[in-house]
Amino acid sequence: MAMTDRLLLGPGPSNPYPEATSAFTRPMLGHLDPEFLSLLDETMARLRQVFRTDHALTFPVSGTGSAGMEACFVNLLEPGDLAIVGVNGLFGERMCDVASRCGAEVVRVEAPWGRALDPEQLLAVQRAHPHARLLAVVHAETSTGVENDVAPLGALHDTDTLLVVDAVTSLGGIPVEVDGWRIDACYSATQKCLGVAPGLAPVTLSERARERVRSRGTPPQSWYLDLGLLERYVAGAQRAYHHTAPVAMIMSLHAGLGAILDEGLDAGWARHRRVGARLQHELPRLGFRLIAEERHRLPQLTSARLPDGADDATLRKELLETSGIEVGGGLGEFAGRAWRIGLLGHSARDRNVTALLGVLRDQFG
Amino acid sequence: MAMTDRLLLGPGPSNPYPEATSAFTRPMLGHLDPEFLSLLDETMARLRQVFRTDHALTFPVSGTGSAGMEACFVNLLEPGDLAIVGVNGLFGERMCDVASRCGAEVVRVEAPWGRALDPEQLLAVQRAHPHARLLAVVHAETSTGVENDVAPLGALHDTDTLLVVDAVTSLGGIPVEVDGWRIDACYSATQKCLGVAPGLAPVTLSERARERVRSRGTPPQSWYLDLGLLERYVAGAQRAYHHTAPVAMIMSLHAGLGAILDEGLDAGWARHRRVGARLQHELPRLGFRLIAEERHRLPQLTSARLPDGADDATLRKELLETSGIEVGGGLGEFAGRAWRIGLLGHSARDRNVTALLGVLRDQFG
Repeated sequence: MAMTDRLLLGPGPSNPYPEATSAFTRPMLGHLDPEFLSLLDETMARLRQVFRTDHALTFPVSGTGSAGMEACFVNLLEPGDLAIVGVNGLFGERMCDVASRCGAEVVRVEAPWGRALDPEQLLAVQRAHPHARLLAVVHAETSTGVENDVAPLGALHDTDTLLVVDAVTSLGGIPVEVDGWRIDACYSATQKCLGVAPGLAPVTLSERARERVRSRGTPPQSWYLDLGLLERYVAGAQRAYHHTAPVAMIMSLHAGLGAILDEGLDAGWARHRRVGARLQHELPRLGFRLIAEERHRLPQLTSARLPDGADDATLRKELLETSGIEVGGGLGEFAGRAWRIGLLGHSARDRNVTALLGVLRDQFG
Repeated sequence: MAMTDRLLLGPGPSNPYPEATSAFTRPMLGHLDPEFLSLLDETMARLRQVFRTDHALTFPVSGTGSAGMEACFVNLLEPGDLAIVGVNGLFGERMCDVASRCGAEVVRVEAPWGRALDPEQLLAVQRAHPHARLLAVVHAETSTGVENDVAPLGALHDTDTLLVVDAVTSLGGIPVEVDGWRIDACYSATQKCLGVAPGLAPVTLSERARERVRSRGTPPQSWYLDLGLLERYVAGAQRAYHHTAPVAMIMSLHAGLGAILDEGLDAGWARHRRVGARLQHELPRLGFRLIAEERHRLPQLTSARLPDGADDATLRKELLETSGIEVGGGLGEFAGRAWRIGLLGHSARDRNVTALLGVLRDQFG
């Protein structure tokens, strides 16, 4: 069976760390086996280090990043609740959709695609709606390459509104300070800067978020994502069976997190910063125009309009078929007109930037 | 890093087929890469063969078996709908919980744990509630080892009530005839008789079930499991992005299904039947008492009360630590008093029965 090998420089999945791939072949263990429960505990401890949190409830949800989003919303929201959502890209839009399906009233706080949300505006909207159940923002908008400031939103800790943060594309690539920024609920995904295959959504919940879940008047509409039931397995003394944990994926995440912590978070962030800066320095010289506003550009995910006259579909197909390099297409208003280039996790290497730029220079240089 | 190797003879996960484990190390592909989409298409075609169906919408949901259950219920039920659920074990109970969270009114049709549901009674209850949206049963009750008859329920095809079947522990182990039994929605899981790691839930929906999803008055309460959105990716011409598919798990499932089809479904069913019959013949000679009523005993999952005086926790711990063999404990009224022994997928081998019986004979013989 012929296998195709790609250099993955799109918005995810990235090429996994070799340690993460190798761990998939560990012998299978039962989800209640003490050996597996130790590995799960160690995985949760590693996630706490990467999320920079002491939150006891920090674990991988058994689904992809969007399941992490849904887990946070279905547990924290009840019908009739008010949710303030920052929207400056596709994933902010998705948050609105998910919150609406929970029966919440959604107040949108918008910025144009490509520009960052204004944290002062978000906080002002919360002051106008002090009973809002939560305020949610996407830290790293994968649709545009924009970083939204989260630190100032920590001020919500002194209100009754919970701070929910999407760290799908940020975790492991740029600093995410769950405790330092006083985030109540944060979720991520394995296939971006954590350098593991897609399939799990690490989440972390503060004590006051857990208290909110405990004090609900109705059970969460999802049984599969019910955190009150899940925590009895992942953190309870009895390790009560809920669903069968995705053992192999957790083994792989365990190993991927090990690779990240062996390198050191600071060193990993510096690596992402360095390769991203280099790419963003070189792309305009080839005729690309960066989309994200300056000072809010994610190093790990660069969105850029194509040079004039370039045909998106043809070029990406050729890049994939001739060079085996994947980059992502634009979304929304940028569909067909922009690329999204990811330098995520293990893929964030100088040699990969060199390879991509070399091919692009032949095309556009 | 020391790795622990187990013989997994509990209710799942089973030991995966070597082909399924090996496929995890295939190079990662993007979820929109044409090479991956071909592999996904082939996986769906293989699932159709295993489910014995022509249903176009047959694909792996990105979560474990319980996510498959939830996917069927949240898409087929709307608040106020009536759902008839057969309950003779834990997983029937779970269906009631999930259906209730969809806002459905649940009518339970019960049989004692260890006995099979009466299909005539189920059909009579449907005749009393002809507007019931669906009738759901668990084909293979993992909590008791009982097989519920599904074929007679195909009569629902001539009514307005959809037939929903949980095939988590049956698919690949005993015949499941989705088209032959006129099942409208069927879900399974990878870690039982499909011999793949836990993490995916294969589902299949009939045309009338899809029509039901299309004609909903409200969007499904789950965005992550919204079949109307999912089918645009898995089966739509545009392969529209929804969430990032769990690529490595799908590669592993693809290979596991390949192993199953190479052996042949009939041969696989015969293998499960043979080893299960042998185990169920020998266990009573060692003082175990089989729980499931005769003629409804699953070959792949045997539940048995422990011999008098035997201490469940001590014995299972010793079996695990001394022999590296995992069996499952009892659930519900059988907790602490019974074992659940799985001979699932690749684990369903004569040599495994020989090994287990050998150890048990030393203990009880």
